[in-house]
Amino acid sequence: MNATTATTAANAITLAILGAEVDASPRDIIVGGNVIRSVEAHDPARALPPGARRVDGRARAAVPGLMNAHTHTAMTMLRGFADDQPLMPWLQERIWPLEARLTEDDVYWGARLGCLEMIRTGTTFFSDMYWHFDGTARAAFDSGMRAVVAGVTLDMGDEARAAAQRDEALHALHSISAYGPRIGFAFGPHAIYTVSEASLLWVAQAAAEHGVPVHLHVSETSGEVRDCAAAHGVRPIAYLQRLGLLGPNLMAAHAVHLDDDEIACLAEHGVNVIHNPVSNLKLASGGPMRYTALRDAGVNVLVGTDGAASNNSLDLYADLKFAALMAKHATGDPTAMTAREALDLATVNAARAFGLPAGRIEPGALADLALIDLAHPMHFPGHDLAADLVYSANGRAVVTTICDGRVLMEEGVVEDEDEIRAEVRERLARLGISGG
Amino acid sequence: MNATTATTAANAITLAILGAEVDASPRDIIVGGNVIRSVEAHDPARALPPGARRVDGRARAAVPGLMNAHTHTAMTMLRGFADDQPLMPWLQERIWPLEARLTEDDVYWGARLGCLEMIRTGTTFFSDMYWHFDGTARAAFDSGMRAVVAGVTLDMGDEARAAAQRDEALHALHSISAYGPRIGFAFGPHAIYTVSEASLLWVAQAAAEHGVPVHLHVSETSGEVRDCAAAHGVRPIAYLQRLGLLGPNLMAAHAVHLDDDEIACLAEHGVNVIHNPVSNLKLASGGPMRYTALRDAGVNVLVGTDGAASNNSLDLYADLKFAALMAKHATGDPTAMTAREALDLATVNAARAFGLPAGRIEPGALADLALIDLAHPMHFPGHDLAADLVYSANGRAVVTTICDGRVLMEEGVVEDEDEIRAEVRERLARLGISGG
Repeated sequence: MNATTATTAANAITLAILGAEVDASPRDIIVGGNVIRSVEAHDPARALPPGARRVDGRARAAVPGLMNAHTHTAMTMLRGFADDQPLMPWLQERIWPLEARLTEDDVYWGARLGCLEMIRTGTTFFSDMYWHFDGTARAAFDSGMRAVVAGVTLDMGDEARAAAQRDEALHALHSISAYGPRIGFAFGPHAIYTVSEASLLWVAQAAAEHGVPVHLHVSETSGEVRDCAAAHGVRPIAYLQRLGLLGPNLMAAHAVHLDDDEIACLAEHGVNVIHNPVSNLKLASGGPMRYTALRDAGVNVLVGTDGAASNNSLDLYADLKFAALMAKHATGDPTAMTAREALDLATVNAARAFGLPAGRIEPGALADLALIDLAHPMHFPGHDLAADLVYSANGRAVVTTICDGRVLMEEGVVEDEDEIRAEVRERLARLGISGG
Repeated sequence: MNATTATTAANAITLAILGAEVDASPRDIIVGGNVIRSVEAHDPARALPPGARRVDGRARAAVPGLMNAHTHTAMTMLRGFADDQPLMPWLQERIWPLEARLTEDDVYWGARLGCLEMIRTGTTFFSDMYWHFDGTARAAFDSGMRAVVAGVTLDMGDEARAAAQRDEALHALHSISAYGPRIGFAFGPHAIYTVSEASLLWVAQAAAEHGVPVHLHVSETSGEVRDCAAAHGVRPIAYLQRLGLLGPNLMAAHAVHLDDDEIACLAEHGVNVIHNPVSNLKLASGGPMRYTALRDAGVNVLVGTDGAASNNSLDLYADLKFAALMAKHATGDPTAMTAREALDLATVNAARAFGLPAGRIEPGALADLALIDLAHPMHFPGHDLAADLVYSANGRAVVTTICDGRVLMEEGVVEDEDEIRAEVRERLARLGISGG
């Protein structure tokens, strides 16, 4: 996937972040267009061309914008709507009936709310799967974030429904390109138990033909593994292999229940696995997910928040603590997944998976980054920035968020926040589920 | 333990929190001295006697101050100092050599820093165990918080050391009473593997004689259980029973590795168990801790952050998410430990354990509470306050913290914050471990 490529002709300086710490030294980060052009020693007297924007980075650390590899952004409007319930009644009685009533505009505003939360907590990219996906694509575009939006396939074996969804996905593949390189498209077969074999085969072929990612829930519960073996005679990863779906363009969300052979197979095919530590715990999906085994086998592991209905936050920093701590717990080894490694899941690993020159603060990288308030109480006394970010602080330490060379939040202020809240309130009232 | 008893002669109104939501209705919370006198319908025109302080509670929810039942507050100055390391090298090479150099004044300022973080995140009570414990008691007193400070016993079988520590603890039992009812004392035998049998027997007797709690680490690792069986022929809980230490005054921290008989025994003796979900995961202590089995047996379960060196945060709200999610994970049941139940661990359960009329907002309760910003982005749209507090927000949503009828933080401002930071910085520099 290379939908969002860095602008190459960024010759003019358009933005300069002055005095921010990069690797514990104060630097000036010079941006041209949507790309970091250079990272230089801090010069308080630096001259900038007219029109270039200055961002004061002093007493701030510059960190790459985080990349949330699996979420259902629009569900942020349902945060706290139905918690602590068994999974199937939760879906069948609360979530699905409500979702059936959502319009594309509802999804747009729900996704704007989710984007707002991600921007506030230092995330600049997300990979989404949800109904009315053009609403999410439009929300990502309008919010200024970078995103890959999946065209959902969920046919329950109904061929007419499957055909309509295939058409819709192909239409979106083209229509979403109108948003430009910041918004990418992926095929989004929901899961092997909700999408027919014929549709999965079609997705494998179409994704290869068009060179786009495939975003899929897989091996989230032991029941799914058991049912797959009963229906197809093999475990889920072998089933996906049979369908031709395993490859570097596959973004396999959850992947909690894997045996050693499946891990080797995922590694061999270069599949990207998206860890969703909070969702897996909250929905009691089992496991824990075998992070160190995946890493040691060479699998590229990413991280996602999942939707706010099963988290209930889109603050990826908070989830990195869960990821790191669950890796230690699962292995009995307190050195498993260091704080630095946890940050890699949400930066360089995700950038590699989505083919983006992102996840690093260096010349040539996309200007997707956040400024962290080093005076934030939870960063004090500041022995180790990575440990502070992952173990003690959270996204609330982010004061400024920049994506694609544009300042989306400065000093805690996102311009559209009041409008987004007002719209979401109005839509919830219309749906009869007003918040407090 | 009844060291911190509500003032009974609180006739004068000294403080009124006006318009704060209590159970989803706007209320005026009327405080006299250190006690809530009444909780009334909100009256914007309420007249108050001269000298009474008004706190604007509008667009805020009033919640009980959280109670952190197991921490090593002074270690907050070591946050991020040595992470992602194996336990014994971590203790032996980094933590213990440093701790050996700490003075009581270092501990005082480290504990002030920890109190600052707790106040900022809505915690009003903590139960501490650390060296130079008078430094912590003084810090709790000066910060305005409520605390129980343990007089540590850790003799490693050295009888001379044990005798000195017994004297020191008895001295502290009396000297700490000088701080008044807000600061209580507990005996603090560190663990069964660091304290001699003779000292443990002495603690059991002295605690009963003086009517104070006993604060102990127990069954934190499987190694501890194995070693206890080898040394004493029984598992840790049976060993404690033999020593006469099991009772409602025992605060048993961690208790990760328990069999069914031990859980029944803890229930029978009314022992309080303190869950430390984040520390257990970060140090890979095993388990998971058997929360639902303890609860179902009738054991009173509390929650603690443990020290910032093994967490690395004292934000108890963040830890409640870990507690609730680990309970779901451990049982495979997404309904295990609801958000409301998680809040109980840090409020009513802790209040019961320490014999404090706290953990509720009602007439006669201690005026220990926090105001939550309902407009906080992570509380939006606000379908369910308990779920929002536990699953989506964290202590950063707290804007005002009140303890013992005194406002310790108002609108995010704690008066002594700059002084505390400056002092901690200076001390870390002297110790040669300056933060960033």
